[in-house]
Amino acid sequence: MIETGARRRAIDEVASELFHANGYAATSVRDIARALDIQGASLYAHVASKEDVLWSIVDRAATAFEASAERAIIETPDADPTERLAALVEAHIETITANPQHSSVFVTEWRHLSGARRTTIAARRDAYEARFRSTIETGVSVGAFHAMDPAIASTFLLTALNGISTWYRPDGRLSPDRIADHYIELALHSLSEDHR
Amino acid sequence: MIETGARRRAIDEVASELFHANGYAATSVRDIARALDIQGASLYAHVASKEDVLWSIVDRAATAFEASAERAIIETPDADPTERLAALVEAHIETITANPQHSSVFVTEWRHLSGARRTTIAARRDAYEARFRSTIETGVSVGAFHAMDPAIASTFLLTALNGISTWYRPDGRLSPDRIADHYIELALHSLSEDHR
Repeated sequence: MIETGARRRAIDEVASELFHANGYAATSVRDIARALDIQGASLYAHVASKEDVLWSIVDRAATAFEASAERAIIETPDADPTERLAALVEAHIETITANPQHSSVFVTEWRHLSGARRTTIAARRDAYEARFRSTIETGVSVGAFHAMDPAIASTFLLTALNGISTWYRPDGRLSPDRIADHYIELALHSLSEDHR
Repeated sequence: MIETGARRRAIDEVASELFHANGYAATSVRDIARALDIQGASLYAHVASKEDVLWSIVDRAATAFEASAERAIIETPDADPTERLAALVEAHIETITANPQHSSVFVTEWRHLSGARRTTIAARRDAYEARFRSTIETGVSVGAFHAMDPAIASTFLLTALNGISTWYRPDGRLSPDRIADHYIELALHSLSEDHR
């Protein structure tokens, strides 16, 4: 059982590297098997299809984003909208930088899921985005944020945040904490009421 | 000559749809030919390789972004950094919404170019981003924008802007002008000096 679990995780790691580098559509089960130095037939002992591998990666990344955002909310129960949004931005960046490849597959490749899996992930993405949107709505209603369209403001922020998964390098100029500092400042400024 | 030009443009249109939907790596010359209802061999009368088609789309999209930004700068010769940045954001959104598929291929698929073409596009992307970065630097130095890292601020803005190419729909809720209004406001707020 332990061996099977380890092999399954190795498949997800290798597959997320390939999906991240070349895209899901351009990656074959044979490519994944070759990168693991095993036969395609052996891979099918662990996964039923390429889409199963994508689902495993995307489901796990979605769970990581959700858990991190929930933790941010639970840890700041009395937060005002500004503090809550800062906590959500920080949690999002932590999740991306902890695993940029899984995050990038989640951000860009989830559309290749089909049927109920695609519907499920679309709904979970919407629910996740709703946390940002409702925090912005509350901020606008209490006057902490300037009047705006909360839906487009959350899209603006989340696309900027998700972009981190495409350019972040663990050996890059900025640590995850410094990126979070900068992005929290830019995000809060973008929403805050203009007092000039 | 005119017929050849028209066929060449049709190839780019169909290819950018396929690259946008499935990615460059997952699209074959045969897929492009099939979508045009011609033989693969006939396609090779017009293009030497799949990468030639990608180059044509990416080069044209890069030229569109550059021309639009240059126009914005020429048309606002006495602009302060706030006005200049607003003009650059507006120009960027106009270019994306005028041709979201070409823009999305430019944003996400250019990495599949090889050799000198890849180097050239990387340099043109850097030069384009430098317009945003230097405007932000000027804004910080004259006190119009708050103190920040101009490189990360321009990355933040450009990834948010480029995200439009993934979600924009011509029949969607917001017109290009309204999207530009919202994004200019969010972008300027994100940078502007906090006077509270």
